[in-house]
Amino acid sequence: MIDVIELRRELHQYPELGFTEFRTAAKVVQLLSGWGYKVNYAQDTMDGESRRGLPSEEVLEEAYQRALREGADPAVVERMRGGYTAVVAELDGSSDGPTVAFRFDMDALPIPESDKAGHFPADQQFRSSHEGIMHACAHDGHTAIGLALAERLSDRQFAGKVRLLFQPAEEGVRGAYAMVQKGMLDGVDRLFCMHLGTGVPTGHMRGAARGFLATTKLAAHFSGVSAHAGASPEEGRNALLGAATALLNIHALPRFSTADTRINVGILEGGSGANIIPAHARMVIETRSADEATNRELERRVRQIIEHSAAMHELEAKIEVIGGAIPIACDAELAELAAAEAAQIPEFAHAEPFSDASALGSEDASYMIRRVQEQGGKATYMIIGTDLPAPHHHPEFDIHEAVLSPAVTLLERLARKRAGD
Amino acid sequence: MIDVIELRRELHQYPELGFTEFRTAAKVVQLLSGWGYKVNYAQDTMDGESRRGLPSEEVLEEAYQRALREGADPAVVERMRGGYTAVVAELDGSSDGPTVAFRFDMDALPIPESDKAGHFPADQQFRSSHEGIMHACAHDGHTAIGLALAERLSDRQFAGKVRLLFQPAEEGVRGAYAMVQKGMLDGVDRLFCMHLGTGVPTGHMRGAARGFLATTKLAAHFSGVSAHAGASPEEGRNALLGAATALLNIHALPRFSTADTRINVGILEGGSGANIIPAHARMVIETRSADEATNRELERRVRQIIEHSAAMHELEAKIEVIGGAIPIACDAELAELAAAEAAQIPEFAHAEPFSDASALGSEDASYMIRRVQEQGGKATYMIIGTDLPAPHHHPEFDIHEAVLSPAVTLLERLARKRAGD
Amino acid sequence: MIDVIELRRELHQYPELGFTEFRTAAKVVQLLSGWGYKVNYAQDTMDGESRRGLPSEEVLEEAYQRALREGADPAVVERMRGGYTAVVAELDGSSDGPTVAFRFDMDALPIPESDKAGHFPADQQFRSSHEGIMHACAHDGHTAIGLALAERLSDRQFAGKVRLLFQPAEEGVRGAYAMVQKGMLDGVDRLFCMHLGTGVPTGHMRGAARGFLATTKLAAHFSGVSAHAGASPEEGRNALLGAATALLNIHALPRFSTADTRINVGILEGGSGANIIPAHARMVIETRSADEATNRELERRVRQIIEHSAAMHELEAKIEVIGGAIPIACDAELAELAAAEAAQIPEFAHAEPFSDASALGSEDASYMIRRVQEQGGKATYMIIGTDLPAPHHHPEFDIHEAVLSPAVTLLERLARKRAGD
Amino acid sequence: MIDVIELRRELHQYPELGFTEFRTAAKVVQLLSGWGYKVNYAQDTMDGESRRGLPSEEVLEEAYQRALREGADPAVVERMRGGYTAVVAELDGSSDGPTVAFRFDMDALPIPESDKAGHFPADQQFRSSHEGIMHACAHDGHTAIGLALAERLSDRQFAGKVRLLFQPAEEGVRGAYAMVQKGMLDGVDRLFCMHLGTGVPTGHMRGAARGFLATTKLAAHFSGVSAHAGASPEEGRNALLGAATALLNIHALPRFSTADTRINVGILEGGSGANIIPAHARMVIETRSADEATNRELERRVRQIIEHSAAMHELEAKIEVIGGAIPIACDAELAELAAAEAAQIPEFAHAEPFSDASALGSEDASYMIRRVQEQGGKATYMIIGTDLPAPHHHPEFDIHEAVLSPAVTLLERLARKRAGD
Repeated sequence: MIDVIELRRELHQYPELGFTEFRTAAKVVQLLSGWGYKVNYAQDTMDGESRRGLPSEEVLEEAYQRALREGADPAVVERMRGGYTAVVAELDGSSDGPTVAFRFDMDALPIPESDKAGHFPADQQFRSSHEGIMHACAHDGHTAIGLALAERLSDRQFAGKVRLLFQPAEEGVRGAYAMVQKGMLDGVDRLFCMHLGTGVPTGHMRGAARGFLATTKLAAHFSGVSAHAGASPEEGRNALLGAATALLNIHALPRFSTADTRINVGILEGGSGANIIPAHARMVIETRSADEATNRELERRVRQIIEHSAAMHELEAKIEVIGGAIPIACDAELAELAAAEAAQIPEFAHAEPFSDASALGSEDASYMIRRVQEQGGKATYMIIGTDLPAPHHHPEFDIHEAVLSPAVTLLERLARKRAGD
Repeated sequence: MIDVIELRRELHQYPELGFTEFRTAAKVVQLLSGWGYKVNYAQDTMDGESRRGLPSEEVLEEAYQRALREGADPAVVERMRGGYTAVVAELDGSSDGPTVAFRFDMDALPIPESDKAGHFPADQQFRSSHEGIMHACAHDGHTAIGLALAERLSDRQFAGKVRLLFQPAEEGVRGAYAMVQKGMLDGVDRLFCMHLGTGVPTGHMRGAARGFLATTKLAAHFSGVSAHAGASPEEGRNALLGAATALLNIHALPRFSTADTRINVGILEGGSGANIIPAHARMVIETRSADEATNRELERRVRQIIEHSAAMHELEAKIEVIGGAIPIACDAELAELAAAEAAQIPEFAHAEPFSDASALGSEDASYMIRRVQEQGGKATYMIIGTDLPAPHHHPEFDIHEAVLSPAVTLLERLARKRAGD
Repeated sequence: MIDVIELRRELHQYPELGFTEFRTAAKVVQLLSGWGYKVNYAQDTMDGESRRGLPSEEVLEEAYQRALREGADPAVVERMRGGYTAVVAELDGSSDGPTVAFRFDMDALPIPESDKAGHFPADQQFRSSHEGIMHACAHDGHTAIGLALAERLSDRQFAGKVRLLFQPAEEGVRGAYAMVQKGMLDGVDRLFCMHLGTGVPTGHMRGAARGFLATTKLAAHFSGVSAHAGASPEEGRNALLGAATALLNIHALPRFSTADTRINVGILEGGSGANIIPAHARMVIETRSADEATNRELERRVRQIIEHSAAMHELEAKIEVIGGAIPIACDAELAELAAAEAAQIPEFAHAEPFSDASALGSEDASYMIRRVQEQGGKATYMIIGTDLPAPHHHPEFDIHEAVLSPAVTLLERLARKRAGD
Repeated sequence: MIDVIELRRELHQYPELGFTEFRTAAKVVQLLSGWGYKVNYAQDTMDGESRRGLPSEEVLEEAYQRALREGADPAVVERMRGGYTAVVAELDGSSDGPTVAFRFDMDALPIPESDKAGHFPADQQFRSSHEGIMHACAHDGHTAIGLALAERLSDRQFAGKVRLLFQPAEEGVRGAYAMVQKGMLDGVDRLFCMHLGTGVPTGHMRGAARGFLATTKLAAHFSGVSAHAGASPEEGRNALLGAATALLNIHALPRFSTADTRINVGILEGGSGANIIPAHARMVIETRSADEATNRELERRVRQIIEHSAAMHELEAKIEVIGGAIPIACDAELAELAAAEAAQIPEFAHAEPFSDASALGSEDASYMIRRVQEQGGKATYMIIGTDLPAPHHHPEFDIHEAVLSPAVTLLERLARKRAGD
């Protein structure tokens, strides 16, 4: 049996950003194949056009080469080249039954990991070896749990099928949608998603999180015509004038009585020199609402403002979705089942079906949950508590590793649980 | 013979704003008819759709009723009702020859006339009897000159034809265009326009003014949807947001290397109450340039900004032209002819063909001049000097009446002048 | 005994806008004095500087003259001249006891009343005789109730004191503050405020409304320098540029996580002509939040944006508060007392202490309630249900007059109620 | 004698950007010292605080290390470290007389040089060896001319003194000001500046260029507070809102009747992520006018807009001058002298004292010229014609090398010319 803690530490040392999880995914492919799973990956598990916020070709290629240098199986990663890093594995149980799926996210964050004494991964020598990149949101733990679960279930002592989904690019809510669009959630009867931490302490477990917001992240590109600002300003088409107009008007969109909303223009960059009418500008926008329809309406208005701010100055506007998520409505049945099973595990002294706190973030597992529910299946998003020395996305973030093994046990029980047991 | 000074004083007492010159125009019709001219007026001399910046129906009707009360011929003004106040009269000379036209503007300004001692019209008891309206730009003098000229020429001692154009609504550059569009300048071989004053002192005369700018005046109406600002702000479509966006972006239009430009949003009004999302806004915009094509391009960009500022917020935008003029290029031949004739009149000790100063204003006689030149005719815009106690458009503006009679004489000489004389 | 319905109809015929309730207030003074009350009014009941959104002197004077023409007591209204229309009356009971206050608002709305058949006041011939002004928010009913209550209590059969507050200018939340600042709520032990209608049907009564929002209404004046837009634009200081910049940035203020917020620029007006750099602009702004501190912070930021938008263009900015309110926290003790008393009155079959719906509007009785509570007193804001043929502020708004008499009875019971009864 | 063409080619191969001309300046120091000049450089020739648009420390250090690797004298460049790359050399003549100064600029541009066949430096193998940097404005030629001049004058056969100014960072009009502030122009009686090309063809020479514009280049930094855009947007202070407001209002500054103006926001960059309220933004602005006072007024207004756009959103604004120039008024006496001397040189068949075309660019030699004139000296800015295969600042720019030697001869004649000769 693999040691889930050791595995987590190994993954922690080689963090990879969204859509560049070449080394991680190749390891997942290798282990799952070895345990008898039917493993699909790369373009078989993701719709290429549906990937959101894909990095540039240079970034993808550089990460690919790094994975090769670090020992990833060339035949496997070759197929993943260009940002196809999802893995989906399936195993038949010993008898007929439902298809039960588990989802794990694999990507890390562009945060330099602390090297201070007292930071556990630094002290224990398994700190990130990729400078500037860090597993600061526990996805190393999630992936390790998924792999340990896979090994335990390789005995096939369960009814129906188990499907394990290893997702790239959860950060920025970018990767799940492409897996859903490729049909990876089709046929699932029960879907269990999970996250470590998020404010829930060690010993606690929640069968269903609540409060995830609908969100859309857009990148807008304004293209105009450069001109010499002194000699012939009227020949220019000023991309920054269009972008600044869009920025102000996007922020000026009304409050909604239907639901609380949020809106932000997080990045604006444009122009090339003091004496040149700026021909290009790029803007990154985020909308949020607890209400999905309200978020869609906000997105519609943002697009409208961008298009007309550009047209006003005879610019071309290109808008791309670089991230997105919808709200999550967990099925009470699974939430209660999960809490009941957790209650059987000594490490979870405090298991409750429903979270009492609102998450107030966004998760693209929401697309997977929605797809399962649309087909008549059930789904939930669980929280496995762990004390944290520093908040998520912090250079000193870490998990309490003792939670990993009981988490595997919980998922194992859920996989082996018969309907009606 | 009528006394041109007495006539000017009579007109001065009854000033009328653009398109409401009912009493003035009716008097012109009456006198010209009496002298044997073939007189056209009302819809026969103006294209209704081409009138720019027409006052509201209420304003037109109120002025019409006032003219009736003040003794205007009911049969004549009835035909002018609704703002058709142009008059065009023609007289055949004693032999064949060219068609020589003269243009006079008739309208006054929304300025309350001074009643202080020392203000000549006040002292002499011919101050405006229409409170708040004043002949503060000498159009009373222009009209009186035109009528006196008509009387003198009624002897038909000239070759060809004389055409006299009495124009409404020069202020705001609104009325000439509708006369041109009705064909009132067709067939003109020589056109003489003139203005008293404009900085040229008594005793001076210029055969051709220069420096008139192309200009466009637009009114833009933004229509949205009102909503309660507290209860359901998202149901509103905010006309003031669209208008403020347009205002900033119109001012931000680039400088042009092709010619100096000017741009102004002179008026913005919108909204109805603190707690109502504003559903309506109105904006008045002016563009200018010495270069006609540059002014057209500015106007095109202003329209584009308005349309997209509106569309950005799902508003409807309606844009109307409420005034306009083009540059004037006087024909040197007529400028020299006029200066030569003036030099024959003792009161014009200083007659020069060309002005040395730039006017830097706009004139819609420019459309008339352009039309004549397009047909192969010649045209000029003369300045007849007069000392001024206060600037044009000032409550104490006045002319030096001694200039009126020599001005009539100058025009008479130009009318009787044979080609090749 | 006066007939409360007849009285209401009489008031309905002579609606008066905020701070111009000369005829109404004079009638209140006359009746209360006749019943033995000690009556204060005019500058004795209002702090002049604390009046918000006072109409112009012309408007105040015109309304004053109208009241005189319509028979108001000249000696009384003379003292109210200039917008001092509050009345406060007090009566001692037959024994010692608490001071119990009741507040009634008197002003009408700038809404033309319907004259259609089926509109009850039209059918019954008591429609507004002040064209364009209408009691469309039931304040005629409130005032009638207050007067009928006064008459009943003139027997002095109660312990302690009764204080009756007749407030001007509740619409726009403008008038209560000046009464509070003058000390009119000092010494009050129990304060009962009330409103007819607001969605609560006939037969229902609520002891305490909830959900009133904090709000601030501001008027901002931008003053710059005019200049000829063609001749010397750089000499202007453009008030509309400053105002449009403020407008966009005010709308762009962030959402707050502390509480839901609203913001609106309801009116913007500026400029004088197409060719003049605009020297003046006026803007009306409204902020709202359920949380008072959040509303204060919003107001602070709005002021900051206005000041710097003006300074950016070398304009002077003047900001005045033209309205305001704070949230209301009713005291449960009075809410329950009121519901219990109402339950004794057959017409109130459905009396409940607390409203289940949120009002989502604003009320400046909030300042009175706050002052009473700060002194250790108790206060509540009751809703007296009445079916409505059309919503509040609608030209066909009307109340169900049968509710008036039971409402008087309810207040009478509250006035005669002994502490500890 | 050095070969001026060979020297120009050597300099062309090692182009260095403004304030990083370590290798070039070290070579200048070495040669001039060898020829007996008294050579000052580094902090002796530049006021550190007056350097505008200094690159970052990283960029300065990297260029310094490159110069060391490429053989620059370590003792010399050590003193220049950190961006002190001006050199000023002086030599006494054989008799008393005026101080005659010549100015040469040394810096290159961030333009990748063409490697196409037909591009002369590529064909002749002296193309830039610093990828992305190119002498595309003839400063290699200027520096070579200056050095060849220095060698010829080392015979001291002239009256008075010669002073040679080798200036860094002319591109972006950044370097001259620091030399002026250090007193490097003090005591100069005649100053000759020059430029190759600029549209004047081979064989032509102009004694005085005209039309240089006043300009100011500013960088503005907006600093706010970041916050999570979903969780607590009100805690942020949004730097991009302030910057976008400034951008629109800067472009909306009025046209001036005093002189033609230009204004541009060439660069805007800010923000860090979709879900973060942006805490920083940077903006680069350029103003221009033929009239120095108008340009100063424009700069004043730009600063005011930036400061208040920042304060409006509680941001800190820091504004730095990163470049600037003033107009140039050449002294006719020197212009005529230069043309007369050029007329003695066969290669200048077409020498004229005054340029007939307007330069319409900006030059920071203007500060040097102004300082000399303030002291009572005379100065001019000459154009030495050369045919160009491609415009200035183009990857295929090149000069006609045959012009170099006659240019040296012209300057030599001007240096040896006695007053009154």
